[in-house]
Amino acid sequence: MSHLKKILKSVADGELDIDSAMKQLRSGMYEDIGHSRVDHDRLERNGKPEVVFGQGKTVPQLLDIMNSLAGRGQDVLVTRLSQEKAEKLLKEQPDAVYHEAAKILTLKLSEKKSTDSWIAVVCAGTSDLPVAEEARLTAEFYGNTVKPIYDAGVAGLHRLLADLDTLQEAKVVVAVAGMEGALPSVVAGLVKAPVIAVPTSVGYGASFGGVAALLAMLNSCGSGLSVVNIDNGFGAGYLASMINQIGLED
Amino acid sequence: MSHLKKILKSVADGELDIDSAMKQLRSGMYEDIGHSRVDHDRLERNGKPEVVFGQGKTVPQLLDIMNSLAGRGQDVLVTRLSQEKAEKLLKEQPDAVYHEAAKILTLKLSEKKSTDSWIAVVCAGTSDLPVAEEARLTAEFYGNTVKPIYDAGVAGLHRLLADLDTLQEAKVVVAVAGMEGALPSVVAGLVKAPVIAVPTSVGYGASFGGVAALLAMLNSCGSGLSVVNIDNGFGAGYLASMINQIGLED
Amino acid sequence: MSHLKKILKSVADGELDIDSAMKQLRSGMYEDIGHSRVDHDRLERNGKPEVVFGQGKTVPQLLDIMNSLAGRGQDVLVTRLSQEKAEKLLKEQPDAVYHEAAKILTLKLSEKKSTDSWIAVVCAGTSDLPVAEEARLTAEFYGNTVKPIYDAGVAGLHRLLADLDTLQEAKVVVAVAGMEGALPSVVAGLVKAPVIAVPTSVGYGASFGGVAALLAMLNSCGSGLSVVNIDNGFGAGYLASMINQIGLED
Amino acid sequence: MSHLKKILKSVADGELDIDSAMKQLRSGMYEDIGHSRVDHDRLERNGKPEVVFGQGKTVPQLLDIMNSLAGRGQDVLVTRLSQEKAEKLLKEQPDAVYHEAAKILTLKLSEKKSTDSWIAVVCAGTSDLPVAEEARLTAEFYGNTVKPIYDAGVAGLHRLLADLDTLQEAKVVVAVAGMEGALPSVVAGLVKAPVIAVPTSVGYGASFGGVAALLAMLNSCGSGLSVVNIDNGFGAGYLASMINQIGLED
Amino acid sequence: MSHLKKILKSVADGELDIDSAMKQLRSGMYEDIGHSRVDHDRLERNGKPEVVFGQGKTVPQLLDIMNSLAGRGQDVLVTRLSQEKAEKLLKEQPDAVYHEAAKILTLKLSEKKSTDSWIAVVCAGTSDLPVAEEARLTAEFYGNTVKPIYDAGVAGLHRLLADLDTLQEAKVVVAVAGMEGALPSVVAGLVKAPVIAVPTSVGYGASFGGVAALLAMLNSCGSGLSVVNIDNGFGAGYLASMINQIGLED
Amino acid sequence: MSHLKKILKSVADGELDIDSAMKQLRSGMYEDIGHSRVDHDRLERNGKPEVVFGQGKTVPQLLDIMNSLAGRGQDVLVTRLSQEKAEKLLKEQPDAVYHEAAKILTLKLSEKKSTDSWIAVVCAGTSDLPVAEEARLTAEFYGNTVKPIYDAGVAGLHRLLADLDTLQEAKVVVAVAGMEGALPSVVAGLVKAPVIAVPTSVGYGASFGGVAALLAMLNSCGSGLSVVNIDNGFGAGYLASMINQIGLED
Amino acid sequence: MSHLKKILKSVADGELDIDSAMKQLRSGMYEDIGHSRVDHDRLERNGKPEVVFGQGKTVPQLLDIMNSLAGRGQDVLVTRLSQEKAEKLLKEQPDAVYHEAAKILTLKLSEKKSTDSWIAVVCAGTSDLPVAEEARLTAEFYGNTVKPIYDAGVAGLHRLLADLDTLQEAKVVVAVAGMEGALPSVVAGLVKAPVIAVPTSVGYGASFGGVAALLAMLNSCGSGLSVVNIDNGFGAGYLASMINQIGLED
Amino acid sequence: MSHLKKILKSVADGELDIDSAMKQLRSGMYEDIGHSRVDHDRLERNGKPEVVFGQGKTVPQLLDIMNSLAGRGQDVLVTRLSQEKAEKLLKEQPDAVYHEAAKILTLKLSEKKSTDSWIAVVCAGTSDLPVAEEARLTAEFYGNTVKPIYDAGVAGLHRLLADLDTLQEAKVVVAVAGMEGALPSVVAGLVKAPVIAVPTSVGYGASFGGVAALLAMLNSCGSGLSVVNIDNGFGAGYLASMINQIGLED
Repeated sequence: MSHLKKILKSVADGELDIDSAMKQLRSGMYEDIGHSRVDHDRLERNGKPEVVFGQGKTVPQLLDIMNSLAGRGQDVLVTRLSQEKAEKLLKEQPDAVYHEAAKILTLKLSEKKSTDSWIAVVCAGTSDLPVAEEARLTAEFYGNTVKPIYDAGVAGLHRLLADLDTLQEAKVVVAVAGMEGALPSVVAGLVKAPVIAVPTSVGYGASFGGVAALLAMLNSCGSGLSVVNIDNGFGAGYLASMINQIGLED
Repeated sequence: MSHLKKILKSVADGELDIDSAMKQLRSGMYEDIGHSRVDHDRLERNGKPEVVFGQGKTVPQLLDIMNSLAGRGQDVLVTRLSQEKAEKLLKEQPDAVYHEAAKILTLKLSEKKSTDSWIAVVCAGTSDLPVAEEARLTAEFYGNTVKPIYDAGVAGLHRLLADLDTLQEAKVVVAVAGMEGALPSVVAGLVKAPVIAVPTSVGYGASFGGVAALLAMLNSCGSGLSVVNIDNGFGAGYLASMINQIGLED
Repeated sequence: MSHLKKILKSVADGELDIDSAMKQLRSGMYEDIGHSRVDHDRLERNGKPEVVFGQGKTVPQLLDIMNSLAGRGQDVLVTRLSQEKAEKLLKEQPDAVYHEAAKILTLKLSEKKSTDSWIAVVCAGTSDLPVAEEARLTAEFYGNTVKPIYDAGVAGLHRLLADLDTLQEAKVVVAVAGMEGALPSVVAGLVKAPVIAVPTSVGYGASFGGVAALLAMLNSCGSGLSVVNIDNGFGAGYLASMINQIGLED
Repeated sequence: MSHLKKILKSVADGELDIDSAMKQLRSGMYEDIGHSRVDHDRLERNGKPEVVFGQGKTVPQLLDIMNSLAGRGQDVLVTRLSQEKAEKLLKEQPDAVYHEAAKILTLKLSEKKSTDSWIAVVCAGTSDLPVAEEARLTAEFYGNTVKPIYDAGVAGLHRLLADLDTLQEAKVVVAVAGMEGALPSVVAGLVKAPVIAVPTSVGYGASFGGVAALLAMLNSCGSGLSVVNIDNGFGAGYLASMINQIGLED
Repeated sequence: MSHLKKILKSVADGELDIDSAMKQLRSGMYEDIGHSRVDHDRLERNGKPEVVFGQGKTVPQLLDIMNSLAGRGQDVLVTRLSQEKAEKLLKEQPDAVYHEAAKILTLKLSEKKSTDSWIAVVCAGTSDLPVAEEARLTAEFYGNTVKPIYDAGVAGLHRLLADLDTLQEAKVVVAVAGMEGALPSVVAGLVKAPVIAVPTSVGYGASFGGVAALLAMLNSCGSGLSVVNIDNGFGAGYLASMINQIGLED
Repeated sequence: MSHLKKILKSVADGELDIDSAMKQLRSGMYEDIGHSRVDHDRLERNGKPEVVFGQGKTVPQLLDIMNSLAGRGQDVLVTRLSQEKAEKLLKEQPDAVYHEAAKILTLKLSEKKSTDSWIAVVCAGTSDLPVAEEARLTAEFYGNTVKPIYDAGVAGLHRLLADLDTLQEAKVVVAVAGMEGALPSVVAGLVKAPVIAVPTSVGYGASFGGVAALLAMLNSCGSGLSVVNIDNGFGAGYLASMINQIGLED
Repeated sequence: MSHLKKILKSVADGELDIDSAMKQLRSGMYEDIGHSRVDHDRLERNGKPEVVFGQGKTVPQLLDIMNSLAGRGQDVLVTRLSQEKAEKLLKEQPDAVYHEAAKILTLKLSEKKSTDSWIAVVCAGTSDLPVAEEARLTAEFYGNTVKPIYDAGVAGLHRLLADLDTLQEAKVVVAVAGMEGALPSVVAGLVKAPVIAVPTSVGYGASFGGVAALLAMLNSCGSGLSVVNIDNGFGAGYLASMINQIGLED
Repeated sequence: MSHLKKILKSVADGELDIDSAMKQLRSGMYEDIGHSRVDHDRLERNGKPEVVFGQGKTVPQLLDIMNSLAGRGQDVLVTRLSQEKAEKLLKEQPDAVYHEAAKILTLKLSEKKSTDSWIAVVCAGTSDLPVAEEARLTAEFYGNTVKPIYDAGVAGLHRLLADLDTLQEAKVVVAVAGMEGALPSVVAGLVKAPVIAVPTSVGYGASFGGVAALLAMLNSCGSGLSVVNIDNGFGAGYLASMINQIGLED
């Protein structure tokens, strides 16, 4: 029974007066901490707790939000967090862990068994590692088994083909590449699983900060491929988790 | 056992000489019909027969390819096919069906039961219908149940919220929008399923043929959302089918 | 009392069962005519009936929507309607009026007295007339007095200054210009009223279909100026009407 | 009687010789302080004193301009002022106030009662706060009541709907968002008041420093919505003030 | 004595009352013919009669404007005029001449001796001829001697160097080029005169309708070079005329 | 001995007076036919006769140029020639041959044995054929052996690998692709020869008329790869010919 | 008699052998100092000595070039020179003068009387000063009288009109503006002289580093206006000098 | 006999079991060092050892890769390496050489005689030197003779023409230019050899970091010209080496 229906029912049953109903619609669903409205309904609505976008927020703001989430027993994931801010947060939240390459901070209050099926995270070059790691860590945070295949770009196809089995048996693939962004097209031509393409800003000149790779991926002639924002390893890892956990208890 | 391994094994067993092995690697996998190399291995490799991109091909070329596929008992899907070319093809292939709005031609040689779970295809405005229909027909071609929710743009949210149940219980959502492309973000905030966002070229002025919508979707603050090319209803339908059929026997 | 509150109250009073409440939330607010969901709640929610975007809709679709609106006594405004489609619609709706330059069709079921205060619609060149007319006709459709000042571009400032009084006493100004789009900046420097800037696609070469004018207006050093989409005379006329009618009974 | 007419009249009356008339046209209207021409006529012409754009000016230039304005009893508003420059100015102008988040410095010589009607300033995320604050402070500087609704982006619609009354009863709404910039479209679909959309440069990758949000807002399917430059909180606050004070004595 | 000063003087002398003065300021300077405000002051203010931009104007509008100008004895130049419209105009104005390649229509009421000094108009390829001709005809319309050097692009430098004398003795040079737009840079390195660079939309692929040539010219390492809009032969011819006639009686 | 040195020598030897020397520098090198300067020196200077860019030239202009070249015994190659213009030219030049798919017209006055080494022309899809054919025909026009490998895009790598020998033994490779433009990168990773990448305008949406493929190729991580303009099959064929004939007598 | 002709004549007269002739063609015209080829012919060919582009050159490179020029008695102008490099150069060249705002260094070996006619340099805002100063100093370096009219943007037209006489009597006008770049259009509508428009990178958001202003200027409806690169005060000053000195002995 | 064929043969001969065959296919071809897969097959496949892209890799990663390559006796070339990282690497690899201007580090284990034929590397200005040097050093690393012609831009053509012989007798030309990028077009018009055009990011304003030069080169009317990425001196030097060594034993 949906949240809305429950409240309507309580109103109909006379268990709830109208003003309380309207207040409850609000208070139960987020916490207003001044600068932010922490979305506590999100776990129920979207199946995952709110994720904190670290960039552009101050350390006190971040702490408030972490406390609001952790205070309700929700695991915390902060993305795009600079080393400098992370160090300040760790002093206050010593149980949190900071992953430097991926610029991700996690605070896990529970432990979950990882999935049997796996997500393959492929990346084209060593320079794409930070984005691939952001995807990997995000997916692992949500309880997925991840198998990384790194530095397997199209200029030396045999490096990719060497891990063809891992790739073809994955339930979903995340393919990360900068420069000409050709890797996801090649991967999509080799597998049956959905491929999530992540362009990175690696490159120079006419790569335009990842635009060349982004366009290549959007125009891929490979089927079953979709694209997330440039350097958005988090988004790819999150979506991959969703797909990998289809069929598990929702 | 993979195709490659099988051939290696036959070679090892002396059942196959080297030159034949190399020829077999080739001949079994595609048919060269001059202008095209029809990819017959694709059904096995990608789980789906090759799809024909109708734009930029001549009618004789299209017929050759259709015959090559149908001759091996594979269903045929031709996308981005003009009415004019379709009429010529239908004379030669009277069993094919042309879907005008979606500019898709299908030739089904087999019949498959549709899935129990469904794909929700939401679109923002009536002008986005052709792209939404391309997604719907593609997904149905591959044996999926599709539930359309059309003309449900963010300027009148209640039109979307009215079908919240259909949306929230879908296994995967395709969200189609032109202009500002805000619909997928709003949808992603409401559901637990993956959302495939399709920008359309509907709009004028600074919509730049769909670029405004594309950028909005790539920058979505909603999680679990990925994007395909502008007007790429086919790609969205194909990917949605992949995800919807996860867990069914491949 | 809001629509939502009214329904909640009826539920609390036992006058309405839950399922009916949920149905009512839906049925009262839009009419689903297959290809479209006509938003009948919009008059109440936004103060104006739904406007029909004519581009990309078929004639039968347009007729269905017009009938749905007119059937509830709402005035109808169709924008971006080609002459060809307009002629077909006029056969079915002989009371409607088509304005060729502005590509607008109106069907007025009621007559309203125009406002005492006025909207000044200024345009830079004769080639910008269609967009200026779209703004003027939209504003008049909603019951506003409009004073046009046409062909008053910055290359001959005296042509603008000659009508300074009309300009400076307007309650709101719509300034339409293509090419370098300098007119709104100059106008904003001369008046106390809000200026709505409308870039047009008039120009060639590096005007990029109105982008040059759009950027100029977004970067205006004049204060009290905001911008709508390229060629969006409708949007400017609609917003000007909103502002001009502030203080009148809402 | 306009300034021009007054001077013509004095000439006609013989009270003013021609050269003095021409000089007066000049001297009465601005003060030339070398690097700048401070526009003292602006209060009369535009209803507001000149605003100082702090970026790209040196501290001595800024002081000269502040003195020129304050010396005539005009309130001073400096925008886009770095902390570093602000500290130097405050030493010379200890009565001024610097608002760090919004990078605004104000020097108020008079005190004005705030309006009864209010401006709602909505922003999508915590990272958009600085721009929202620039809008809020600007509007308050000009004597308006402002009600902020912060961190209410479309990924969690209930956070916005919770303050629907404040929003729907505002006389004008400023809607601030980065990333996909969907918030103003959703807001415009919910209210009767004009909506001023402010794209922010918050985001990464294909947000292109706010271009994605800007395009989304320009293409909004919501009516009554217009757009200002990326991060232009000042412009939105200024225009909102203009609209909110319509009907008050000009 | 300026126009303004003359009127002020008449007012001071009592020869003119204030209202007449204000009317005179207006009526003497343009003619309002409804859709257009024909700028009759322009001959005095800018030294040249108003030029008519033919694109986007209807035939009746064009006729009205031509009559307004010719009626006051001013020569008429209409640019960007399609063959179709030109034929209709010529029926009404049989003394006018239409230049098809340049899409220019001229109506000369007076005859002027051409200048002794000349303007060199160089173009890179045969495909650039229409723009070069627009520049040449415009300059000739204003009484200048023009020497064309056509099809002299940088891929065969000797073709340009063959006419080095004509080039180096010109008072001003117009250099027209599409594709990579290198010609003006090379020319500027060879002459002492100002070079007006005109990018054309000739090219394909990454020429982006003339943008490649435009950017090349704006970034020229040659000094004494400035640029006009893509395909703006008129603008170049007009400016060249201005410069060529410096020192002649204005 | 260079052309310049020869003339200097004749002057020194008194065999040539100065004015004749200067004239000779000019007359020997091109023919001025009014609208065009046909570059007869080019065969000597660049090793190949001038090529005629058909687009934007009139039929009479094209005939003049063809006659000027053929009159001196030079083979003629006209590119980007519409079917309509071609038919008119063929009436006057019945020995010429028009290649419809490639939009190329050739007039060969001599016959040359083709090279032993070959150029491989690979293309990604059937829709890229016209550009691949333009490259093939251009290279054959200049006496090269060409081996085409068509419809061998990266979505089905085996189709490319099947012809690996032809590819790896080519002296130079032309790789043609639209959409995501990944083919040249993959090819460059497999061969030792230079790869000339040709982006095509095949695609839709975010392919932006070939820009996506162009950017991918410019950013290729493969070495030994360079790029020509979008759809510039001619340029690729010409350059491939140059490289393939290195070592042959020039 | 041209340089080339002189040498040809010496060869014909037997005064010069061929190898010396060829050497002289080279040595007389530039000095090769390893990293640079200093163009000493430029004074004769272009009427002005070579100008040194300071950006991207090292201090030793700059010194070498300065010495090469000064050693031949040519005045030296270095543009885009950072303060830091300037200080090092001044130690070696104490007679040089560095202009900080304009980032220009000059070394004048001769003194020239300034022209009677003047160049008006107008700029829109105080923030545009550095570019305007670069134009002013460049023009003065070449012996021109310059009259600056600063901070006269279109938001307060009276500030510009106050100096109408200075503007209208100038022989050429340089108009500098950032943001919406409207000033040159307005100026061109008021004067008979050529207007050189200089876009500046002043602005934020959708000004895109001066692109908005650049596009506005390229699309100006004002005649007699041409454009130089963003922030290219030097180019404008140089061209203005050329035009201002027409008619003076070259 | 190819690597693949050899392995197949060993399998057929029973000298190799299947699993070993598959392992050998992998292990022989690259070394997996965790963060990277060093491509040892590349020397055989592409004729050159793998090149290391220094940007975005950490010092330990770079050392690992260098050791992996040098450990197999392969020469090492690291590009885009900052001075800071280079100093750290040199401590560990004292035999390596760092070229500061070109940001290249080389470690040569063997010495090769340079080619008799040469590559001409031309650059337009002194500021383009770093990119030209990257091309020169790369080509020399691979055993080519290189002749540099620096600071020979089109603004002073005689500087280029002075070295015409060196240019015209080169086997291949690398032409490097920023700003308007005209040099390669002019060079291609003068030579018979292939021209590799390298746009640089030198410039300001509308050069957009090298885009203006890139577009100019892609649109060149010169034949036999192809383009590499902005600032990609390495790519040009590598390709030039390939072409220069055609006909030498591969």
